[in-house]
Amino acid sequence: MPADSDTHPFDRATHLQSSGDGRYTGLPSAEYANFVGPFGGVTAATLMRAALESPQCQGEPVALTVNFAAPVEDAPFEVSARAARSNRSTQHWMMEMTQAGEVVATATAVFARRRETWSAAEASPPTAPAAGEVPALGWFEGLPVWIRNYEIRTVQGGIDLSGVEGDDSVTTLWLRDQPPRPLDFCSLAALSDAFFPRIFVRRQRLTPIGTVTLTTYFHADAGLLVQQGEQLLLATARASRFRDGYFDQVAELWGVDGELLATTHQLVYYRE
Amino acid sequence: MPADSDTHPFDRATHLQSSGDGRYTGLPSAEYANFVGPFGGVTAATLMRAALESPQCQGEPVALTVNFAAPVEDAPFEVSARAARSNRSTQHWMMEMTQAGEVVATATAVFARRRETWSAAEASPPTAPAAGEVPALGWFEGLPVWIRNYEIRTVQGGIDLSGVEGDDSVTTLWLRDQPPRPLDFCSLAALSDAFFPRIFVRRQRLTPIGTVTLTTYFHADAGLLVQQGEQLLLATARASRFRDGYFDQVAELWGVDGELLATTHQLVYYRE
Repeated sequence: MPADSDTHPFDRATHLQSSGDGRYTGLPSAEYANFVGPFGGVTAATLMRAALESPQCQGEPVALTVNFAAPVEDAPFEVSARAARSNRSTQHWMMEMTQAGEVVATATAVFARRRETWSAAEASPPTAPAAGEVPALGWFEGLPVWIRNYEIRTVQGGIDLSGVEGDDSVTTLWLRDQPPRPLDFCSLAALSDAFFPRIFVRRQRLTPIGTVTLTTYFHADAGLLVQQGEQLLLATARASRFRDGYFDQVAELWGVDGELLATTHQLVYYRE
Repeated sequence: MPADSDTHPFDRATHLQSSGDGRYTGLPSAEYANFVGPFGGVTAATLMRAALESPQCQGEPVALTVNFAAPVEDAPFEVSARAARSNRSTQHWMMEMTQAGEVVATATAVFARRRETWSAAEASPPTAPAAGEVPALGWFEGLPVWIRNYEIRTVQGGIDLSGVEGDDSVTTLWLRDQPPRPLDFCSLAALSDAFFPRIFVRRQRLTPIGTVTLTTYFHADAGLLVQQGEQLLLATARASRFRDGYFDQVAELWGVDGELLATTHQLVYYRE
């Protein structure tokens, strides 16, 4: 995809130039800048995109794990993607992002050819008022730039920075790309990381944090993503434990008709 | 550790012979045989052990992801472990297991030096009667061999193979190595995979399955594991979605004093 102004900011941010043999180059997008480096969701999507754009790629992503090894500098990066194993119905990928020869992120992904089987839901979507009844978060100076690219309508568990510690960190919100963009696996991977850090919600104060690892399971296939289109997702996140510098986040991303599109987990470093 | 008869079966099963430069060799243990290949939890633990035994290893594991790329044959395997990035407080590892030059599993791990910070619980342990009040699963012909190495006391969500589909796949059980063995990071990694497949519980029938990827977050540090010692863990697992050949499992492993030791997620292939 050309990195021109016609494309969505997300497509520009995850754009890769192939240099052949599973190697790509790219540049962090200023449009998705975070407090330090780019928004991790875009880094995750970029790593998965390297596998997706490979001529060897078979099937659709079912799982992605991204490890954030060091801040991504505002400078060109290189991505390598290697199919470690290709089976009849699954394919296992390993990816690395480097800058000046140093690893800044590693990733693995599982791709699969799904086929129809007995299927059943077990989790249920959170209850929430219709998106139109919930105000959208307005971007303001002080928020990281990347948030401008997401429409966020917080139903529960927002951040008021009151400093009053709550009993939990549960957040439920309506979420999509801004401007709206048809959902695909890469944008869903990025949306998996689009929650505010759980510790901000729990403590209602900002502390230095950084995601160290993120895993997303894609329960949707490409057909379900097409069906979702540009509509808002209903997303919910919580933590299990905050302990001596690390907390986890467990989240679900729900689509139209109460379809679970993805479940996602991350472990986050925090200080203080 | 010598692979002699004095050691616990788990230590024999995860034993690695270093050939230097982050390369190791090992052999699947017949004591942990599964229906096809060895128990995945032992493969996961073996991969993490390769990083743990490296002279470069810094800190303690906080996250592990293992991708099961192909069945592990009953033949020698090679493991490579590489510190992709070492920072002041974190270290990122990439591991691969190969047999006859073919990748059978890949893994990433995050190690960290924790320090004391503000900490808080969010999830709560499941309610369960004392372990002594719950009968232990007796091993019988037809069960995979590896189950003999675990004491399993099912509180809720066992398997009766009645064929009557339930409303959920929630399982809660008491769990530890058998014979008892002091808990460490490797055994906790293996215990993360010691649940029966959610689909067996939900459908109460056996179907061909295989875990494709497993992620464990370690909320415990080494001190908490020592405190746990050989005592039973209280473990609970559920699924979010079964869909066209893949389902997820979300699980928690609780220790004494209601301490959350690990949370773990996996995506599992199923047929039918």
